[in-house]
Amino acid sequence: MEIILAPDSFKGSMKASEVTKYMKDSILEVFPESTIHDLPIGDGGEGTMEALINATNGSFTTVSVTGPLGDKVTAQYGILDNHTCVIEMAEASGLKHLDQDELNPLYTTTYGTGELILHALNHGYQNFILAIGGSATNDAGAGMLQALGADLKNNQNHSIHFGGGELQNLAQIDLSNFDPRIAYCNFIIATDVQNPLVGPNGASFIFGKQKGASAQNMHQLDDNLTHWANLVEHTTGIRLHDLPGAGAAGGLGGAFKAFFPSYFKEGIQVVMEYIQFEKYLKQADLILTGEGKIDQQSFYGKAPIGIAKCAKKYNVPVIFIGGSVEVDEKDLKDSGILSAFSLSNGPMSLEETFSKSEKLIKQTTKNIVKTFFHNQ
Amino acid sequence: MEIILAPDSFKGSMKASEVTKYMKDSILEVFPESTIHDLPIGDGGEGTMEALINATNGSFTTVSVTGPLGDKVTAQYGILDNHTCVIEMAEASGLKHLDQDELNPLYTTTYGTGELILHALNHGYQNFILAIGGSATNDAGAGMLQALGADLKNNQNHSIHFGGGELQNLAQIDLSNFDPRIAYCNFIIATDVQNPLVGPNGASFIFGKQKGASAQNMHQLDDNLTHWANLVEHTTGIRLHDLPGAGAAGGLGGAFKAFFPSYFKEGIQVVMEYIQFEKYLKQADLILTGEGKIDQQSFYGKAPIGIAKCAKKYNVPVIFIGGSVEVDEKDLKDSGILSAFSLSNGPMSLEETFSKSEKLIKQTTKNIVKTFFHNQ
Repeated sequence: MEIILAPDSFKGSMKASEVTKYMKDSILEVFPESTIHDLPIGDGGEGTMEALINATNGSFTTVSVTGPLGDKVTAQYGILDNHTCVIEMAEASGLKHLDQDELNPLYTTTYGTGELILHALNHGYQNFILAIGGSATNDAGAGMLQALGADLKNNQNHSIHFGGGELQNLAQIDLSNFDPRIAYCNFIIATDVQNPLVGPNGASFIFGKQKGASAQNMHQLDDNLTHWANLVEHTTGIRLHDLPGAGAAGGLGGAFKAFFPSYFKEGIQVVMEYIQFEKYLKQADLILTGEGKIDQQSFYGKAPIGIAKCAKKYNVPVIFIGGSVEVDEKDLKDSGILSAFSLSNGPMSLEETFSKSEKLIKQTTKNIVKTFFHNQ
Repeated sequence: MEIILAPDSFKGSMKASEVTKYMKDSILEVFPESTIHDLPIGDGGEGTMEALINATNGSFTTVSVTGPLGDKVTAQYGILDNHTCVIEMAEASGLKHLDQDELNPLYTTTYGTGELILHALNHGYQNFILAIGGSATNDAGAGMLQALGADLKNNQNHSIHFGGGELQNLAQIDLSNFDPRIAYCNFIIATDVQNPLVGPNGASFIFGKQKGASAQNMHQLDDNLTHWANLVEHTTGIRLHDLPGAGAAGGLGGAFKAFFPSYFKEGIQVVMEYIQFEKYLKQADLILTGEGKIDQQSFYGKAPIGIAKCAKKYNVPVIFIGGSVEVDEKDLKDSGILSAFSLSNGPMSLEETFSKSEKLIKQTTKNIVKTFFHNQ
């Protein structure tokens, strides 16, 4: 029997590579003869870099860059081959660097993400995979552009400061010192977000709250992004306002669309291509996927759904394991997932689930494979 | 496909018949063509009566009897056919009638259990199935014997009062008015308890605590049971002290052994015979069993284990569903259970699990049968 293990990370509890390890160990206990392909995945957010590094036997580079609020943070990016790197924007500019009371998209910047790109450019990388989930920012990518040489000036010809709140002071986008190497690179932007830059479905109103914006902030941020989009249109001719994906990562998506040779893809598609998922599919009897929490609201667009969609082509059953699984029969059927199990083995708190996650994932995996392969 | 549903009750949450109903409904949603045999079970404690009533299309009789602390309680017993009834001692004398602070085996009596037997004798029943789990008593069955005409006298020739504490005053067991019909009846005692009446493994020390006895009480209760056993031996020639099973239900087991034509069986065996479990086994593809809580300490002796043991003879896989499932691979393998799933679908409190139990059992059942029958 041949089994593919393709879980996402269980946020706050286990990395995707840990989940695959525990799954693999437990399956080999009950079916020592089985062939197992461990292909941890990511959905374009945190974990994507790790999945690609795992798939390519790549390595990490550690850099000190500007964090979302201007102080220095340590960030990693991944090296996949001599020409190709993978950058998670959250490493430099993500929610994970801030406490709840520090969140404020009026001030947070993507400057550090630009520094990561600059570092990679300086080391000769030309192919970039940018995973842009988990951002703490709503600055339209202005900080990233500044780090790469763009001069964003106010009407006194001074550079504007960091943050989505500062964009209201922007008068001119001066690209004369924008890094010329960028035009010769290729940027794959891994994101599932299809939102436009502005308006009721735009970055500020849809994602502002989780980044710490009040209702009033959201209005101001949306006005500022509109002002930004007008200037971008004036400068480049590209109209970001309603462009799908321009609202990803607080408008960082729009910056890639306007100023970079970029191509947008669903995170899971990028990962599946790199891990050569389809190659393994042809021989597989079963795929185990999963992630920390899944419910009806978050079901679509999740990495495991991408896995299931792909598996359907080859009629390979997909079983989902999650920390918390609040989906109904119809969701499962529509997404092509055979069944979905929680790793909880009884009433327990989130903390207890986290602390026992290794044991629980092993127990659940064994239960599933023994039930599935009961004839073997 | 043919599936047997044979769960025990989920204590505090769902009766066994409710569990089978939810399981059945959910299976028919995904496999409408399947043949389902719903055979709810019990382990000799609460739920045994219900399982037998379900299996025989029997009925209930409601009687007002003396509760464990002397006040009146409403109790049911079951009618299986014209000659046969099933009595749960807990209906009259069980822990379920008392709050935590009322528990006190110095005072609790099995008198009401005797009244249930008397009522059934008066209505012509000759075959008795006695499920003796869940007792609040440690009176050696003295109360039951009193209700059935035995006169338990102190050394002033007065009848002693109720409770395990009173046994120290017992001087003589006078059976001259003990109901003569009992000798012509048959009593199947459904229990898994193999403990002797007295000593460190006896009723008082092993089960006294859960019935509310302090360490000091337990010593007194054990002394009293020894005194009782001496008198029983003097009266009947039967030595209960070390007799396996005599310690069941606070010594009620011993009373059946000494004064009744009785035969002891594991609760699950009694139920499996009545529900003709083996008949259904021959055609079955899968058995779903389960109960509220199972862990390594409580694994053996549980009703689902009896089910699994029997199913093994016919090579029918058994899958367990529990509210809380704390068992390891080896426990499962040794017991012949293929896999064991919790119905929790994520971190949640016991209360939340209880309140969502219908939804959760349906979801878990669907997940399991879809995984098991993935080829169909």
